[in-house]
Amino acid sequence: MPIVTATIGRRTRGDGDTVDLTDDLSAAIGESGLGNGVATLFIGGSTAGITTIEFEPGAVSDLQQVFEAIAPQDRDWRHHLRWGDHNGHSHVRSALLGPSLSVPFVNGALTLGTWQQVVLVDFDDRPRTREVVVQLIGE
Amino acid sequence: MPIVTATIGRRTRGDGDTVDLTDDLSAAIGESGLGNGVATLFIGGSTAGITTIEFEPGAVSDLQQVFEAIAPQDRDWRHHLRWGDHNGHSHVRSALLGPSLSVPFVNGALTLGTWQQVVLVDFDDRPRTREVVVQLIGE
Amino acid sequence: MPIVTATIGRRTRGDGDTVDLTDDLSAAIGESGLGNGVATLFIGGSTAGITTIEFEPGAVSDLQQVFEAIAPQDRDWRHHLRWGDHNGHSHVRSALLGPSLSVPFVNGALTLGTWQQVVLVDFDDRPRTREVVVQLIGE
Repeated sequence: MPIVTATIGRRTRGDGDTVDLTDDLSAAIGESGLGNGVATLFIGGSTAGITTIEFEPGAVSDLQQVFEAIAPQDRDWRHHLRWGDHNGHSHVRSALLGPSLSVPFVNGALTLGTWQQVVLVDFDDRPRTREVVVQLIGE
Repeated sequence: MPIVTATIGRRTRGDGDTVDLTDDLSAAIGESGLGNGVATLFIGGSTAGITTIEFEPGAVSDLQQVFEAIAPQDRDWRHHLRWGDHNGHSHVRSALLGPSLSVPFVNGALTLGTWQQVVLVDFDDRPRTREVVVQLIGE
Repeated sequence: MPIVTATIGRRTRGDGDTVDLTDDLSAAIGESGLGNGVATLFIGGSTAGITTIEFEPGAVSDLQQVFEAIAPQDRDWRHHLRWGDHNGHSHVRSALLGPSLSVPFVNGALTLGTWQQVVLVDFDDRPRTREVVVQLIGE
């Protein structure tokens, strides 16, 4: 049973920018030649997260509205005292959402629901270039 | 090292209905004949989530109370503008909790704590028939 | 492709005590001799969680402040009616953060960002001795 490592690169706008990784993830599985297994996605960095959502502007906006209520951008976060930056909210949101996601695939297809996409949410307060690691383990 | 795919079906009542998957998950590991490995659970769909909790009515109710405060059912979610439905809160809660969980097993037993169960939480606003995918990788 | 099981033990102070597991996790990968794979961390118990964060006192404190707002310690949680204890908030926070994390490693190194550490957050209301299970699958 082999392991195949892939990466998915994205340029994001920050501020909760949510990008759909599903097609690239499916392509990585296709290129691996694996039939059944698990895709582990991971974002290196402490100001972004990975989850699934119905990727349409309303639901994406709703999620951001809730994060803004839970961890507002303009609070005097203690993290700001450390570096003099202004992305304390980004760190909290990232820790809450989590940096990893594991998605099984069967017969080469992700086991996602019809209205469910794999997304990277970039909480940082500025545009970033991100690289999501995809580790495929299967047969 | 083989991969074994199982599914756990459940009829849920929606509205935060929380169902215990632990026994079925243990049974799937037993049937696989695997001793050591990782069980990856995944719910296909964008209005449910998977986590662990002490599965007793109080803690389950407490979790739902917090979700209601974070993402109330009766808010005018933007997602409603998309489809004319009323489950915007379900999508937000699902994205926050996450659709997947990875649980190691050792000598055929889940590494759960004594008071810890694996649960599916169905946030949708109506009863659903759900199928959780369980991908077992081990030896 | 082998599976290697390790454990990381920690004595925590509870009340949101956040401990850095990164060095021990890296050491476990090194000792396994595996090059590429996935490390699945899991905390057995329903009052703690695992995530990543920039491990500095400000960001750690910010995360705890948000958990205190979402699930306050002094609320009359229904879970308290079950056992007469006082850690209902701990259970809710644990279920929200989640007990597991999957981190890919490549060429023997975790794919973490520069300012990103793997942490155990102990939400219980008293000191605990914890054992995090680390399941390494790789080649």
